[in-house]
Amino acid sequence: MGDVKKIAVLGSTGSIGRQALDVIRALPHQSEIVALTGNKNLKLLEKQTREFQPKMFWSAVRPTAEYGGQFLPAEEIASHPDVDFVIVATAGRTGLAPVLAALQAGKTVALANKEVLVMAGEIIIREASIHQAQILPIDSEHSAIWQCLQGEESRPQTLLLTASGGPFYNYSQTQLAEVTPEQALQHPVWKMGKKVTIDSATLMNKGLEVIEAHWLFSFPLDSIRILIHRESIIHSMVEFVDGSLKAQLGWPDMRLPIQYAISYPKRWPNPELPRLDWNKINSLNFEPTDYDKFPCLKLAVDAGKSGGTYPAVLCAADDVAVELFLNHKIGFTDIAGVVQETVEQHRSVNQPSLEEILAADEWARQYATRVSCDHYQVPDSRISRSVER
Amino acid sequence: MGDVKKIAVLGSTGSIGRQALDVIRALPHQSEIVALTGNKNLKLLEKQTREFQPKMFWSAVRPTAEYGGQFLPAEEIASHPDVDFVIVATAGRTGLAPVLAALQAGKTVALANKEVLVMAGEIIIREASIHQAQILPIDSEHSAIWQCLQGEESRPQTLLLTASGGPFYNYSQTQLAEVTPEQALQHPVWKMGKKVTIDSATLMNKGLEVIEAHWLFSFPLDSIRILIHRESIIHSMVEFVDGSLKAQLGWPDMRLPIQYAISYPKRWPNPELPRLDWNKINSLNFEPTDYDKFPCLKLAVDAGKSGGTYPAVLCAADDVAVELFLNHKIGFTDIAGVVQETVEQHRSVNQPSLEEILAADEWARQYATRVSCDHYQVPDSRISRSVER
Repeated sequence: MGDVKKIAVLGSTGSIGRQALDVIRALPHQSEIVALTGNKNLKLLEKQTREFQPKMFWSAVRPTAEYGGQFLPAEEIASHPDVDFVIVATAGRTGLAPVLAALQAGKTVALANKEVLVMAGEIIIREASIHQAQILPIDSEHSAIWQCLQGEESRPQTLLLTASGGPFYNYSQTQLAEVTPEQALQHPVWKMGKKVTIDSATLMNKGLEVIEAHWLFSFPLDSIRILIHRESIIHSMVEFVDGSLKAQLGWPDMRLPIQYAISYPKRWPNPELPRLDWNKINSLNFEPTDYDKFPCLKLAVDAGKSGGTYPAVLCAADDVAVELFLNHKIGFTDIAGVVQETVEQHRSVNQPSLEEILAADEWARQYATRVSCDHYQVPDSRISRSVER
Repeated sequence: MGDVKKIAVLGSTGSIGRQALDVIRALPHQSEIVALTGNKNLKLLEKQTREFQPKMFWSAVRPTAEYGGQFLPAEEIASHPDVDFVIVATAGRTGLAPVLAALQAGKTVALANKEVLVMAGEIIIREASIHQAQILPIDSEHSAIWQCLQGEESRPQTLLLTASGGPFYNYSQTQLAEVTPEQALQHPVWKMGKKVTIDSATLMNKGLEVIEAHWLFSFPLDSIRILIHRESIIHSMVEFVDGSLKAQLGWPDMRLPIQYAISYPKRWPNPELPRLDWNKINSLNFEPTDYDKFPCLKLAVDAGKSGGTYPAVLCAADDVAVELFLNHKIGFTDIAGVVQETVEQHRSVNQPSLEEILAADEWARQYATRVSCDHYQVPDSRISRSVER
């Protein structure tokens, strides 16, 4: 086949990582796994390495048994000469160092780990440009925009990111305050990890996507709009200067944008990918964006506009707050409160270095934890109480 | 500006022609009118020539007054060295000879006159290929598909042509039989000429578009689907082999596809073009296609599949039937009957020459006229009666 892509999947045991392996499994002639990295799920990583026989692997917990491949840090894997294509399916700040290493080695990076661009967009884009390395989006919205921009010579005027709105979009403020982690994890549309699922329910995820789109497409934040579209059939749209729009549509399944990143600029038939059935689609619906009920969205966009270390602080505070919510320590609507207080107390650094970004992250984690313990707490009844701020 | 396109507008006094001039008027630095042709509306053509001062013009009725420009046949204009770009906004078979002349002279042809491809698709596409001349679609559906295909390296799997369904899509069979020309001309969405408006109401227009798409994109007829979408916001879609779809959307206004053909591969800002307002769009709706109630659609697709001179006969019979309907000579639902009888009685020629196509057209016009007089007639009450067939 000649053109077989040599792929490293970072975060192969997570939701996106597993779906990336599904795609690669279905297309054995187009790609080859040369490396896998996991976090703490050693059992699954072992299963994956048995199946794919990668040359290299890594996990947060070093396995005692021998896997056959070489145990190497993620940064070394991402920049290894045997790797062409790095799928970054890790979560949070974990992806930062490997992505930088991959770009500096001129690899193509397929990025699902949105915090990488949110935290350090300027550095990431600069390094990609210096080393002529490509960053391809795997997020369905950014993949949609990227697909819509193919072959277009003129810059678009507006990016329209669609948002499912999450499971609680039509809840009242009171109902939102009582949402439990168990309810929030039953996300209706996309198959995702826990953190992203909660971020989708608070709309923080959409806010992070706005910042991600800003960096990926070097597009002004003010020209990126959110459109609530509960069915998640239209994955995003682009409006051009002549008033024409293009939309990318499909059944909500992460394997499609993952495969597109791998097959790009071609498209590959894959019988396992679901199809839209137009006999069953009667309507595509849109609702106005409720910024008041979902303050995380505005917090994120504002942090993006403020720049500096604000977006890193936003991410870190959200990470802490979501973790506390999942552990029943704070309520659903407290997540925004924790993030807001942390961002407000932060002293941002302009054009931060990677070290300054990581320091801001560290500060934010500590501050957010303290704020949560001091000001927010879910009583044992698991119903969050409203807190005066 | 250097890159000013020298444009001939054939059929400048018709609906599409006037809208083409609107676009060119709004973009004086990007294009220049070098020729205009009209049919019988001398008054409007005179006004247009005064405004645009073309070097050449033509009309079906030769004007007595001097217009300044040279009076030349449409074929000579279409192939003239001073012309780069020919907008073919004529109707019916009128466009055939000028389009062939333009392609043989290597001009870029922006085609709104769909009968040209329906009647003589094989010849037209062959000549375009031999002379390396481009055919750009102006029909909104085909422009949508063309826009969605930009930058795609892989052939699509399905083309989804959207159809407004016309003003009577939800009428009963009995109601349809009673439709008057006056009702039919009040088309709800697109600004079009009379013939196209009636063809939209019978869905014949959509059938012709299927054949047009088949030739424009060298795409199998069986893989072109119709999707009823009453709002005409999504102008058409393309499904790719990986299950991803792209759609082109916009406010229904013919000036957008006209401008895109002129600006291609760029896009130009034009404040006069309307914008979609997502604050006002709550839903996009789809309905199944009712082939039984709108037999013209199947007649057209079947004629396309049969090939030979069948599509030319279909067009000619429809032309006659629509004219008779507009003159209150036959009923709305009789249009399909006249077309069907004519097509059924035709002896098709395979791979026909242009002469054979025109002969089939002539035969069909006579046959359809005779059939209409013999079998169909609207009583003075203007309510068509059902006719045994």
